[in-house]
Amino acid sequence: MTQAVRHDSMRARNLGVVLHEIRRSGPITRAALAEITGLTKTTVSKMVGDLLGGGMVVESGALREGERGRPGTAVSLSGDRVAALGLEIGVDHLSACVVDLTLSVRLRRTQAVDNRSTSPVETLHHLRKLAHRAVDEARSKGLVIAGSTLAVPGPVDDGLLRAAPNLGWRDVRVGDLLDFPVTVENEANLAALGELWFGSGHDDFLHVSGEANIGAGLVVGGALFRGARGHAGELGHVIVSPGGPACHCGGRGCLEQYAGQEALLKAADVLGGIPELVERLRGGETTALRACDRAGQALGVALTSAVRLTDPGAIVLGGIFAPLFPWIGGRTRDMLTARLAGTRQAVPGLGVSRLGGAAATLGAAGQVIHRIIADPGAHLTTTRPGTA
Amino acid sequence: MTQAVRHDSMRARNLGVVLHEIRRSGPITRAALAEITGLTKTTVSKMVGDLLGGGMVVESGALREGERGRPGTAVSLSGDRVAALGLEIGVDHLSACVVDLTLSVRLRRTQAVDNRSTSPVETLHHLRKLAHRAVDEARSKGLVIAGSTLAVPGPVDDGLLRAAPNLGWRDVRVGDLLDFPVTVENEANLAALGELWFGSGHDDFLHVSGEANIGAGLVVGGALFRGARGHAGELGHVIVSPGGPACHCGGRGCLEQYAGQEALLKAADVLGGIPELVERLRGGETTALRACDRAGQALGVALTSAVRLTDPGAIVLGGIFAPLFPWIGGRTRDMLTARLAGTRQAVPGLGVSRLGGAAATLGAAGQVIHRIIADPGAHLTTTRPGTA
Repeated sequence: MTQAVRHDSMRARNLGVVLHEIRRSGPITRAALAEITGLTKTTVSKMVGDLLGGGMVVESGALREGERGRPGTAVSLSGDRVAALGLEIGVDHLSACVVDLTLSVRLRRTQAVDNRSTSPVETLHHLRKLAHRAVDEARSKGLVIAGSTLAVPGPVDDGLLRAAPNLGWRDVRVGDLLDFPVTVENEANLAALGELWFGSGHDDFLHVSGEANIGAGLVVGGALFRGARGHAGELGHVIVSPGGPACHCGGRGCLEQYAGQEALLKAADVLGGIPELVERLRGGETTALRACDRAGQALGVALTSAVRLTDPGAIVLGGIFAPLFPWIGGRTRDMLTARLAGTRQAVPGLGVSRLGGAAATLGAAGQVIHRIIADPGAHLTTTRPGTA
Repeated sequence: MTQAVRHDSMRARNLGVVLHEIRRSGPITRAALAEITGLTKTTVSKMVGDLLGGGMVVESGALREGERGRPGTAVSLSGDRVAALGLEIGVDHLSACVVDLTLSVRLRRTQAVDNRSTSPVETLHHLRKLAHRAVDEARSKGLVIAGSTLAVPGPVDDGLLRAAPNLGWRDVRVGDLLDFPVTVENEANLAALGELWFGSGHDDFLHVSGEANIGAGLVVGGALFRGARGHAGELGHVIVSPGGPACHCGGRGCLEQYAGQEALLKAADVLGGIPELVERLRGGETTALRACDRAGQALGVALTSAVRLTDPGAIVLGGIFAPLFPWIGGRTRDMLTARLAGTRQAVPGLGVSRLGGAAATLGAAGQVIHRIIADPGAHLTTTRPGTA
């Protein structure tokens, strides 16, 4: 690496340090920023100028530093211009949301579409229209969409959706079917990030999401754990019983065969989906109760292995497990306690996400904002006047 | 947080940035360091002076920067003074090693002791003597031990060894039985770090270690994944079959009940330990072969769940699985392929560690060095003249 390249990367890092400090401590003066960061005042002033020009910070009046000295003009993070678009393709819906640089949710739109019966081209056509409406609406509020992330229900390799069994899709390069740049990411990962940034306020947890697929996202110390290739958290294919029923993944006895939406509805003898199952559970129907009991037990086995391997601070159930929690949670919790309490100081708490279906979309938009804040230089480079 | 405190932490961070840059690019001049880091020349000179004073860097002759300007004196990382002590308590041995700031291994000592039949006090008495001999020997080479880490065969909470079933210990505050400060850490974590810093050169892998206990350490992007409380990687208690044999952890059907040393030797009908088992396997004894087959299968099930949850780049088998690999590895690999190949672009490779029994001790010493390099300020503060 040449010194010029390293110099550039150090400048980019310092710009990130300055923005991070403004975000944490703003309103704050340039003098205080130089003092805290150890950078020269000239460097700080130049960087604040760039951030002001990019609409990422805003001047917010004079601030006196200590007893002595002239008051300086303070700067703060601005929620008025830079924003991000979060999108989701679900089994029965498309969603969009816009979040600004201060992580305030500025708009949310959901559209009921049965994506099981439509092709990728059709679904993405609907999504494109939804996205454009959201961008237009954001623009009318003075916001500029700096980037977007799309949540999809399956594993993603470099933008390629490998498989989404509940949509019947395989190897779809989703981004190519949209007319704007988008980062494509697994919904379980994004839902965990949504829970982190917009949810319960925990910093360490395993978030379980999913409809047909059971996925999980592990957050440790406020960061998503992705594994070597971004496929960590495939809780649905943790083995509950090696001789159990065959799974579409090629294995046997995976969690999904006991607690996935399809297996659960089949065991409960329900045709009408989770709302109908909940109704029958409320009515105390034995078959439905037994199916949930079995699912809760299997979930307890898989989560025990997950706790052993990943040591989460807490477990947050989302997706179908949120509405089913009253009939599944108790059995799952008992299982975890029986198998973990003997050797652990603390068994991770088991709770329910409060974000409902919005977790993945919020996580998608939040991811864009967090990337901009971590590397504002890259954002400023791509949004120089005339190119935005 | 006050600005003074933040200022201090920023200074400490900058000192780390300077040392990191010297380590990566040395020999390098102060002028080039200022250029690359964006810090003022005064700040860089002061920091380099502190690092020279602490023996962490050394001046290494003049270096001309580009075409113009006077040649400046270059500095490099020094392996001549600051060093770390790595220690390990195993079932049948005690080990020590000394590693210098450049991560060169300067000495290694192992002592055969049957720690199953001794109390913590006795064992730690032997370890203390071994450690002092290693420190004296290091001193005779001009090295100063800046810190030490001790690997123990069980989970650790804040220095408290919670349980080491193969030693028969429970809730032992190991550090209190030594007469020098030591960080106590689970051997599976340290063995993974040893593999990272001194082993195969991979940056992303799951390292499986263990004797009676089966432990694992996950390294992702060159960093150990610890989980929320440092207990991640308890592979031995991943559930292979929920109705299987009772385990000392309180659960049933844990991997250790199929592939742990005790279970394996019992199933193979071997009294004399792993070397005897290997001998019988070489002789083609059916009971021994069957036991390994069963263990390999169980290891395959547990590792499938581990891959699903943590997505490691590769799997490296150490501990008892290294000598047993010829009789276990094939079955484990078949299991992984059968269960993962259908949904994954790549099934993680399965290999054997080349570090033998030294992985944890090397990881222990390496951890101290990496902490010093990440925060040289803390090291310099504790080793001011007169306090070393």
